[in-house]
Amino acid sequence: MENDLLEYGRAVLASQPFSVLLGTQLLTFTAGRAELAIELKPEFLQQHGLAHGGLLSYLADNALAFVGGSVLGADVLTSEFKINYLRPARGHRVVARAHVISASTRQAICQCELFAMHDKGENLVAIALGTIIKRGS
Amino acid sequence: MENDLLEYGRAVLASQPFSVLLGTQLLTFTAGRAELAIELKPEFLQQHGLAHGGLLSYLADNALAFVGGSVLGADVLTSEFKINYLRPARGHRVVARAHVISASTRQAICQCELFAMHDKGENLVAIALGTIIKRGS
Amino acid sequence: MENDLLEYGRAVLASQPFSVLLGTQLLTFTAGRAELAIELKPEFLQQHGLAHGGLLSYLADNALAFVGGSVLGADVLTSEFKINYLRPARGHRVVARAHVISASTRQAICQCELFAMHDKGENLVAIALGTIIKRGS
Amino acid sequence: MENDLLEYGRAVLASQPFSVLLGTQLLTFTAGRAELAIELKPEFLQQHGLAHGGLLSYLADNALAFVGGSVLGADVLTSEFKINYLRPARGHRVVARAHVISASTRQAICQCELFAMHDKGENLVAIALGTIIKRGS
Repeated sequence: MENDLLEYGRAVLASQPFSVLLGTQLLTFTAGRAELAIELKPEFLQQHGLAHGGLLSYLADNALAFVGGSVLGADVLTSEFKINYLRPARGHRVVARAHVISASTRQAICQCELFAMHDKGENLVAIALGTIIKRGS
Repeated sequence: MENDLLEYGRAVLASQPFSVLLGTQLLTFTAGRAELAIELKPEFLQQHGLAHGGLLSYLADNALAFVGGSVLGADVLTSEFKINYLRPARGHRVVARAHVISASTRQAICQCELFAMHDKGENLVAIALGTIIKRGS
Repeated sequence: MENDLLEYGRAVLASQPFSVLLGTQLLTFTAGRAELAIELKPEFLQQHGLAHGGLLSYLADNALAFVGGSVLGADVLTSEFKINYLRPARGHRVVARAHVISASTRQAICQCELFAMHDKGENLVAIALGTIIKRGS
Repeated sequence: MENDLLEYGRAVLASQPFSVLLGTQLLTFTAGRAELAIELKPEFLQQHGLAHGGLLSYLADNALAFVGGSVLGADVLTSEFKINYLRPARGHRVVARAHVISASTRQAICQCELFAMHDKGENLVAIALGTIIKRGS
């Protein structure tokens, strides 16, 4: 069952050309939890050698939408989200861990934490809070 | 003077590998105003053929940072922002128009509107509001 | 017609005990525009003699809900909003001016600017952006 | 030590006329944690008999500022926050539980959860995420 959901989520991710371009991976996908990761290639950085904030906001947006979809069904949209950047994102990889805070049949309020993974461990680099809605609602 | 600022802004953009990857262009850059654009290539879409929300959030993040930098100086960071998606982003191009709402020496509150450009005109597709801070502050 | 809407809005405001407690006034109410005001009594301040941020967030929340209701109908709820405080709110009165940025049948994205009115004019003291939804949607 | 901080926090709260008007109580106050409560008097409701959203946003704003101040020092301001309303707030009391997610010497990113307390237990009714800054920074 869980494996089915993960496989399904990976198929959805593979159908997003932008996520394919960035090489986004879906690590975990269960009802109420989603974990996405991106390898920090040189072309994903900004001028100071850090992960571009826009890459982090992409990953947050996508993790929020995935986790919202895990409880609302496949056809969802991000309605809105807010992101706070906490510290510079250095390392070889960024992982977004999202969970559902509250859901109705029509929308889910979801939160996402972004971690930069480096040789010595991981740092929380950003936090996002947003609303995912069923399409057509 | 204005041309100098625009040229300077374009050099900053060219120093962001992620923006180079996406082909982001700086159209306007004056004190308090910035306009960035991206051509909507097929690889920037999501599974329904629309611009990926994460692409829009990247563009909003970057436009907010540029316009904040236009009044605070080059060395700025996005502290936080919120984005509301208003309607599906279809078309050949997305343009982000950002302006400064209020600024002190240390931070600027900035707003950004994103438009999808298509054959029949343009649609407002998202709006963002955020805080840009001087690095080290 | 416009007067009818204003009268109707004032009746709604009068039915909110919390707004009655604070003495909130509805100055303008048309489809897509709402203006609310509060006299800055001593009991509405915080410890530095400024308007309490929570008073401003109340006024923003209410102005967003009113303006959303002006296009969605009476039975609306604030789904979420964000507020940026721009400068200290000093003066004898705070006015919130809200407008609709984009609306569907189910929800409206609305913006609100808050001004402190004082002897020498007015200052923009906060800006808010939020989502108003039809109840039951 | 902890008791000293709680006593100090209560003195700060008592110096906010708006909080005195609303009868806000400080239940917990340690480095990184703050808990505020309000009894839901009839005059704090909106037209449907629920806690007014603006009351909740006031409480979130204040809990965020207190918890930010617990790590930054007394002289802080709310820079911005976002609140998502999750379900109607019914009951006899609202409690806001705030914690610090990340802090530098100048600012703290804080989160706050609001619970409505009723005869059968408590419900999470809203969640807020915001930035608290040192005054003068």
